[in-house]
Amino acid sequence: MRYELYYWPQIPGRGEFVRLALEAAGADYVDVGNDESAGGMQAVLRLLEDAGAERPPFAPPFLKAGDVVLAQVANILQFLGPRLKLVARDPAMARWTHQLQLTIADAVAESHDVHHPIGAGEYYERQKPEARRRASEFREQRLPKFLGYFERVLANNPRGPAHLAGARLSYADLSLFHLLAGLRYAFPNAMRRIGPDIPRALALASRVATRPNIAAYLASPRRLPFNENDVFRHYPELDP
Amino acid sequence: MRYELYYWPQIPGRGEFVRLALEAAGADYVDVGNDESAGGMQAVLRLLEDAGAERPPFAPPFLKAGDVVLAQVANILQFLGPRLKLVARDPAMARWTHQLQLTIADAVAESHDVHHPIGAGEYYERQKPEARRRASEFREQRLPKFLGYFERVLANNPRGPAHLAGARLSYADLSLFHLLAGLRYAFPNAMRRIGPDIPRALALASRVATRPNIAAYLASPRRLPFNENDVFRHYPELDP
Repeated sequence: MRYELYYWPQIPGRGEFVRLALEAAGADYVDVGNDESAGGMQAVLRLLEDAGAERPPFAPPFLKAGDVVLAQVANILQFLGPRLKLVARDPAMARWTHQLQLTIADAVAESHDVHHPIGAGEYYERQKPEARRRASEFREQRLPKFLGYFERVLANNPRGPAHLAGARLSYADLSLFHLLAGLRYAFPNAMRRIGPDIPRALALASRVATRPNIAAYLASPRRLPFNENDVFRHYPELDP
Repeated sequence: MRYELYYWPQIPGRGEFVRLALEAAGADYVDVGNDESAGGMQAVLRLLEDAGAERPPFAPPFLKAGDVVLAQVANILQFLGPRLKLVARDPAMARWTHQLQLTIADAVAESHDVHHPIGAGEYYERQKPEARRRASEFREQRLPKFLGYFERVLANNPRGPAHLAGARLSYADLSLFHLLAGLRYAFPNAMRRIGPDIPRALALASRVATRPNIAAYLASPRRLPFNENDVFRHYPELDP
């Protein structure tokens, strides 16, 4: 099966959570938005704007797997999980993994809203004072709440703190790795301060980064650098 | 099976999406947060703050079904769907229903952020000018985009525009009903203007409201009124 990932080009974005799962599993896939020979951004827009589509995605990323087209990161990962062996077979454990992914998605959405509190339709430069206020609450309340939660999940995992769910790598571990990478890019100072409180989460992220498939991916041009057109943005004034 | 719904008392909130599914199916359930004899808000907090919980919820709502405790509205509905016969058995249709639910969840989150652009930690009164700016973008861009999307899904459903997914009622239909109810409460003027563009969505909402179980529920004290401690809030200055 050759998977086709449709996402905006030149940013990791929310597409990265899907990319990491595909890369960790060594899956055959094409990153359509970043691959001109596969159609590039035009192909993403064509599918997105197909007025007659029976099951249209609301927004990228979406995944094509044969006849299946599906959107929403957590939904895509729930589909890919068993196929890529990145989730337990036990239904209760699979639901728990999905629940964790949905909470990661909430953290990602809030990370974005820090630099766009007034809305994504206006440039950051037009909402800088508001972003500063939102960033303060994010750094002091939301960031510790989200990361403290994942730390607690790791500490309470009866199979040990190496993974969020059960005793094996899941797509939620990969997503937590990327959430932490994004937050460290966007808020290096806040993340340095919170570091001592989340040793298990940081250790998980370090281990994910050294898995052979992931290490090879991170060193490749397929891993796009974070930048200020993306979900996670580094604006020094938001991270004093 | 007696289900236990755990959610903050006295607001419909995100718990309402779960309540509607339970009510539509005539399921046996207790709304713990609103039922002092079941423990009320203290019982919600106790489960939420259980430091040793193996699979802790990040936030309400969460559902107890026997030994199962699960959180995140879309995850709860995915679990309840087959049990309450509120989703198709076909896996592809079930995934599509879930995908729609996740997009409804995104619309709900944005509806909340309109009145709390600077963050949920500060009172609305301390972020009124910012809320006005965010509301303007929401009314003019995001609201038409989300509702136009669901209208298109209904128009393109090969089984007809009566339901979002397939030919039968699903939990996504119930959730769209509540999203529209909340938006009509919060933004009556904007919703009046957009009405002619979303006839199928409004017709679906009307039909949901007249289903016997739902009509009985809406007329009962179990249906909590919208109010300004909730996700959907009516502030006239945000809906000129």
